[in-house]
Amino acid sequence: MKFCSDCGSARVVQKVPAGDNVPRFICEECHLIHYQNPKIVTGCLPVWEDKVLLCKRAIKPRYGLWTLPAGFMENNESVEQAAIRETWEEAQAKVEQLSLYMVLSLPHISQVYMMFRTQLCDINFAPGIESLEVQLFHQKDIPWNDLAFPVIHRTLTHYVQDYVTGQFPLHVGDIIKTSCTQHPHFHYDI
Amino acid sequence: MKFCSDCGSARVVQKVPAGDNVPRFICEECHLIHYQNPKIVTGCLPVWEDKVLLCKRAIKPRYGLWTLPAGFMENNESVEQAAIRETWEEAQAKVEQLSLYMVLSLPHISQVYMMFRTQLCDINFAPGIESLEVQLFHQKDIPWNDLAFPVIHRTLTHYVQDYVTGQFPLHVGDIIKTSCTQHPHFHYDI
Repeated sequence: MKFCSDCGSARVVQKVPAGDNVPRFICEECHLIHYQNPKIVTGCLPVWEDKVLLCKRAIKPRYGLWTLPAGFMENNESVEQAAIRETWEEAQAKVEQLSLYMVLSLPHISQVYMMFRTQLCDINFAPGIESLEVQLFHQKDIPWNDLAFPVIHRTLTHYVQDYVTGQFPLHVGDIIKTSCTQHPHFHYDI
Repeated sequence: MKFCSDCGSARVVQKVPAGDNVPRFICEECHLIHYQNPKIVTGCLPVWEDKVLLCKRAIKPRYGLWTLPAGFMENNESVEQAAIRETWEEAQAKVEQLSLYMVLSLPHISQVYMMFRTQLCDINFAPGIESLEVQLFHQKDIPWNDLAFPVIHRTLTHYVQDYVTGQFPLHVGDIIKTSCTQHPHFHYDI
């Protein structure tokens, strides 16, 4: 933040406000504190019989790699509405029976992923504007080496493991990215 | 947003960007799109034997009313870290065995509450700077008429109900506030 979005002043500094313990962007002209907080990314793991629905990304980053339909939650909607909306936008797919399945914090990019396990209402899906292809995959055919993000890999791994038992408990955890290796370290999972 | 926080221009307008379907703040000078997204509020329902820990608020809004320790998640932390931190800051209480218990969307204020059921490590708690008092309550003594927020009422109601069965499943839902009555309508709960 270089300018105050409220008064336009360039006198924006980063410091810890009185009674706080985190540095914030503060305008020294109008004294407004500009808080910045993590964003929620939410989406679905849509299931049809023994298959899962994946989308091939038509946008950067990770153009051409496979992902689950998901995106940033918007103001004035619920998490479920956002997950349903993203699934419609990216895969033109209608889903039902939402069950929260993964809550994963990514502190290095200040995001929280919330993924719902869902049932497809029908198989009338099609690529949305952000997808090149949308396809149902048998578990044995999941393109593990061509998944777009560690979160997607993690979600599908849990799903395949849980499928064996038929129990799909909520998984809560985080993905800590170490700057030296750029490889994700799976911190814990309760 | 009245000024662009990146270039300082006052030529900030609200319109739907190309390829989008939601109005955003856009700078017509430098063309930056300023996205705004919901915030996460997270905290704990700390349990000790058959009692729950509540904090009497020392800050507005709802000064003097009782709440669970909770607050805005910060950048660069996990949801669990944020819940533990808030519990320490508001109640000087240490907790363990975090279990995600409530995920409640409040679309009218673009917040998502994520409350963890936890066990107190000990009873060496004390009011933090944002609390007047911190106290353990037997379930029969919970001050239902003096709770600070509908989310707190909802969380404690579920807890008291679930306590009977000894099963504490995750509750996902939303609180829709109707502008005419200012009373929360509990939309659904899966």
